[in-house]
Amino acid sequence: MAREYIKLKNPPVIAASAAVGGKMEGEGPLGAHFDMLDPTGRFGKDTWEQAEAEMQGRALGLALHKGKIRQGDLDLLLAGDLMNQCTSSSYGTLSYGIPFVGIYGACSTSAEGLMLASLLLDGGHAERAGVIASSHFCSAERQFRYPLDYGGQRPPTAQWTVTGAAAFILARQGTGPRITAVQPGRIVDGGITDANNMGAAMAPAAYDSLKRYFESSRTVPDDYRRIVTGDLGAEGKGILVDLFAKDGVVLGGVYDDCGLIIYDKNRQDVHAGGSGCGCSATVLSTYLLPQKPGKMLYMATGALMSPMSVKQGMSIPGIAHIVQIEC
Amino acid sequence: MAREYIKLKNPPVIAASAAVGGKMEGEGPLGAHFDMLDPTGRFGKDTWEQAEAEMQGRALGLALHKGKIRQGDLDLLLAGDLMNQCTSSSYGTLSYGIPFVGIYGACSTSAEGLMLASLLLDGGHAERAGVIASSHFCSAERQFRYPLDYGGQRPPTAQWTVTGAAAFILARQGTGPRITAVQPGRIVDGGITDANNMGAAMAPAAYDSLKRYFESSRTVPDDYRRIVTGDLGAEGKGILVDLFAKDGVVLGGVYDDCGLIIYDKNRQDVHAGGSGCGCSATVLSTYLLPQKPGKMLYMATGALMSPMSVKQGMSIPGIAHIVQIEC
Repeated sequence: MAREYIKLKNPPVIAASAAVGGKMEGEGPLGAHFDMLDPTGRFGKDTWEQAEAEMQGRALGLALHKGKIRQGDLDLLLAGDLMNQCTSSSYGTLSYGIPFVGIYGACSTSAEGLMLASLLLDGGHAERAGVIASSHFCSAERQFRYPLDYGGQRPPTAQWTVTGAAAFILARQGTGPRITAVQPGRIVDGGITDANNMGAAMAPAAYDSLKRYFESSRTVPDDYRRIVTGDLGAEGKGILVDLFAKDGVVLGGVYDDCGLIIYDKNRQDVHAGGSGCGCSATVLSTYLLPQKPGKMLYMATGALMSPMSVKQGMSIPGIAHIVQIEC
Repeated sequence: MAREYIKLKNPPVIAASAAVGGKMEGEGPLGAHFDMLDPTGRFGKDTWEQAEAEMQGRALGLALHKGKIRQGDLDLLLAGDLMNQCTSSSYGTLSYGIPFVGIYGACSTSAEGLMLASLLLDGGHAERAGVIASSHFCSAERQFRYPLDYGGQRPPTAQWTVTGAAAFILARQGTGPRITAVQPGRIVDGGITDANNMGAAMAPAAYDSLKRYFESSRTVPDDYRRIVTGDLGAEGKGILVDLFAKDGVVLGGVYDDCGLIIYDKNRQDVHAGGSGCGCSATVLSTYLLPQKPGKMLYMATGALMSPMSVKQGMSIPGIAHIVQIEC
């Protein structure tokens, strides 16, 4: 069953969402649509890791506020991030005291969380659930690449980790965009070993997921008003388009990538585009949902590697979870 | 709803399980009950990290074999581990090509996975799902503490990370132990900052979960044939017993901890007992389920810190998910 797309019998509603971001996000095309921006990226904290955790807490607080939902009315939280041992999520949501399910899907976290929450709500196991995903440029750089002060050079295929967190409140009752179907991704390894080319590493997983989705739902790209990937960037987006073109499938104008939506590549020095759990999550909250695009496939993509696995010469597998949203 | 225990309408069955382990696990009281042991801890791989991934793959393969279930019949896999970015799970299950949901609950991972899988099966979203959790002494030591060669001294409250992985196949149909209720844990911070005292860090979360469970299900300890925590060890077990004693609740002889079951403290130099995602998971597969103990509460406990958060002086929050199993 779960190998195919799963149509929800009781599609839950995204009752509210909120996004917070940093300097680059504020200066980008979506800047005006963030619910809170801190150009210092510190969010009042002493370390980048604690700043990222704080972003999660603030995003959740803002989403609850916007949806006029009390934290006591949330049955469950699902949250994840890129930090070792997912500490942004555990420290960031600690003060809420809401039953918590930690998830790890690298940059696919927002879609993984929305998928799981939708399934639990559809099954009647919760009335309201929160989903949070975050990333922070500074905490990610020093964990995955180099200390910021080192000033390492970045190749053209590198992407810029979004400093951002978004929270979504899903509910069984109410009005708003509905999650009508989901599909868990499979881990796919395209053999990429270059940690500065995540787009290429994730594109085969995105292709595998989207192809399965089209086949099992008997749909084609034009059946959707929008199809968005999470953070394939310019490099990965091109590969995904090419992979489908070989099958004679044209993704066309309905397809875009959140990593290319969040920044203005001509104005901002982000190389192949944005990335990170916060990329797709904040674009969904600030841009895609408010646009009410009709029937949309939201497919966040993740690269399931670690600095250790890359140093050990392992290739970088990817995953892509799909959430169908109807606004 | 999810703030209380969730009774399943269609309790799934644990159709099969398998556990693999290393040297210390083989020499312990449960040694004869593991499905596979590799005293070298290498599982044919060049690095400890790849060895841990290999353990996940082997545990899943053995569980499928024991249950006479083809990998193509699994709709979904839920897996997690302690490694940075959960790479043991992604690399370990890659070759199976089964839709994958990555989870992070530190050492509570087995219960988190069993809980989520049960809810998805109960909701009719999958027919069969696999759950895997693993840890490896050598990969954990060098990531969380010191390189093995350094030979760092360990205080009496320190625990010994289990080298082990267990896989469970849950199904909507069939015979075997049934998961009849679950309860997601809340993140609870007892203020412990000593990374060598995880038992004390996790005990308050275990207390919070178990107390909520007793209250919402209107049960007392003696209503269960067994209540087991995941890896509180001697230190944490004592604290949990004391916390309940203050409420006038005697956990008594039905209560034990997997960290004290897996090793023989008198014979093996494991300080306060076993720990790690693999601890509770392998004890459940090798010992608790085969015993057919009747109605049991299986509560795996996790410490949601990272080496970075400890270095930054943050205290160590815990979490404890509960799965009620009836054999």
